[in-house]
Amino acid sequence: MSGRVVTSLTNPTVKAVRALHQRKEREETGLFVAEGLKIVTEAVELGQAPTILMYGKEADGHPLLRQAIAATLKAKGEVIEVTQDILAKVSRRDNPQAVVGVFRQVFQPLAKVDPKSATCWVGLHRVRDPGNLGTIVRTADAAGCGGVILVGECCDPYSVEAVRATMGSIFAVPIIKADEAEFAAWRKSWPGSVVGTLLTATSDHLSAPYRKPNLVLMGNEQQGLTPDLAALCDVNVKIPMRGRADSLNLSVATGIMIYAATA
Amino acid sequence: MSGRVVTSLTNPTVKAVRALHQRKEREETGLFVAEGLKIVTEAVELGQAPTILMYGKEADGHPLLRQAIAATLKAKGEVIEVTQDILAKVSRRDNPQAVVGVFRQVFQPLAKVDPKSATCWVGLHRVRDPGNLGTIVRTADAAGCGGVILVGECCDPYSVEAVRATMGSIFAVPIIKADEAEFAAWRKSWPGSVVGTLLTATSDHLSAPYRKPNLVLMGNEQQGLTPDLAALCDVNVKIPMRGRADSLNLSVATGIMIYAATA
Repeated sequence: MSGRVVTSLTNPTVKAVRALHQRKEREETGLFVAEGLKIVTEAVELGQAPTILMYGKEADGHPLLRQAIAATLKAKGEVIEVTQDILAKVSRRDNPQAVVGVFRQVFQPLAKVDPKSATCWVGLHRVRDPGNLGTIVRTADAAGCGGVILVGECCDPYSVEAVRATMGSIFAVPIIKADEAEFAAWRKSWPGSVVGTLLTATSDHLSAPYRKPNLVLMGNEQQGLTPDLAALCDVNVKIPMRGRADSLNLSVATGIMIYAATA
Repeated sequence: MSGRVVTSLTNPTVKAVRALHQRKEREETGLFVAEGLKIVTEAVELGQAPTILMYGKEADGHPLLRQAIAATLKAKGEVIEVTQDILAKVSRRDNPQAVVGVFRQVFQPLAKVDPKSATCWVGLHRVRDPGNLGTIVRTADAAGCGGVILVGECCDPYSVEAVRATMGSIFAVPIIKADEAEFAAWRKSWPGSVVGTLLTATSDHLSAPYRKPNLVLMGNEQQGLTPDLAALCDVNVKIPMRGRADSLNLSVATGIMIYAATA
């Protein structure tokens, strides 16, 4: 590329991208940041062009970057070459990726969910840790789940930490948001099993009767599934705890449940 | 407790504990840091007393702290009350736990492994991420695995990040270290199945024939299982990838495999 290299942290585009580390700013703009040429390329291939594309000198000339630049410009987005220092500031990392894209967030409403379009869906109630959320989105993608439904107040799936943990799956997996009351009303028409995971359940996760499509519902890191949400499930199951530990990491437990429900 | 409150970052005990953030220091001293009254208490109950116990004012008088102090002193360890500022520096966190213990690292040799004492064991080759390693130790504990075998050059299971992710399971799960050649020789006498997880395998992880005790062998985050290690396995399996994502997070994949191998 020709054109000017942006070197200043006071450049308005650079400032706008850095501001996306704040949840408030992400909510107001409806935008988010995804890092890395591989992930930006996957987004473009899935039909989502960046609104802003930033790259460092070391990526210049890469055929995939040229393709991402073309897609960005075609969608009337902005493309800038920046310094390594700006990439580090934008990523808050000493060794930043050479390409950073800004994309539009997509949340689907519950009404758009077609339960039978997949054998498994994932519901998360009040999940708190962005690394867990992102890892679960990645697992949902790998297992071919229909989407991830965020029930109640959850951490932001579009935070930089969550997006990183998805490894690009944020562009492939539909994210749905609903409050508890909406979810409770909507789940009544679920055609398969809503499966809660609960440490106090008596059936184990493999022996319980599941009817596809399964909706695997998980509570948060601190409390697990609340009694209100557990009461909404067709069946509650537990992953057997056979040692000293009395719980699993949420993203591990969700992965075990997803693969049990899709087996 | 009566006694002086340590307020200075140049106090030799405080300096020694802070130095344990460095791997070299941990290797030279054979010590590590575990945070939180709950975890320190579990260590004491498992017979492992701290060599150093630090606590802040807000923990003072807690019955479990009194018990941990007594165990520390009985084992000729050192007990100091410190300021919030010191706890924050030791933990590198703004909101540190009120209790920090220093403990002796325990690595078991391969020769001490009794395969039939558990139905499942975990082998990790060149694992890199301490959060993944700690989460896997936690899962191994929850599933009742016999131990975690670190094959080749791995990240340190006794780093603060790894220990945090174990949520106390570092005290409950035997950690074994071996280089590749030792592991290759030793596995010949394994009485059950050594099960490798490989994206290029043709059998899926549930249909493959497992013979307990199972030794689930996982490669690292970047490359997966190397051909050399895969060749040491009785069977190689893959977790089905049904979406766009071409891999799972290592701790999620290991959790799915452990629960498949213990089903």
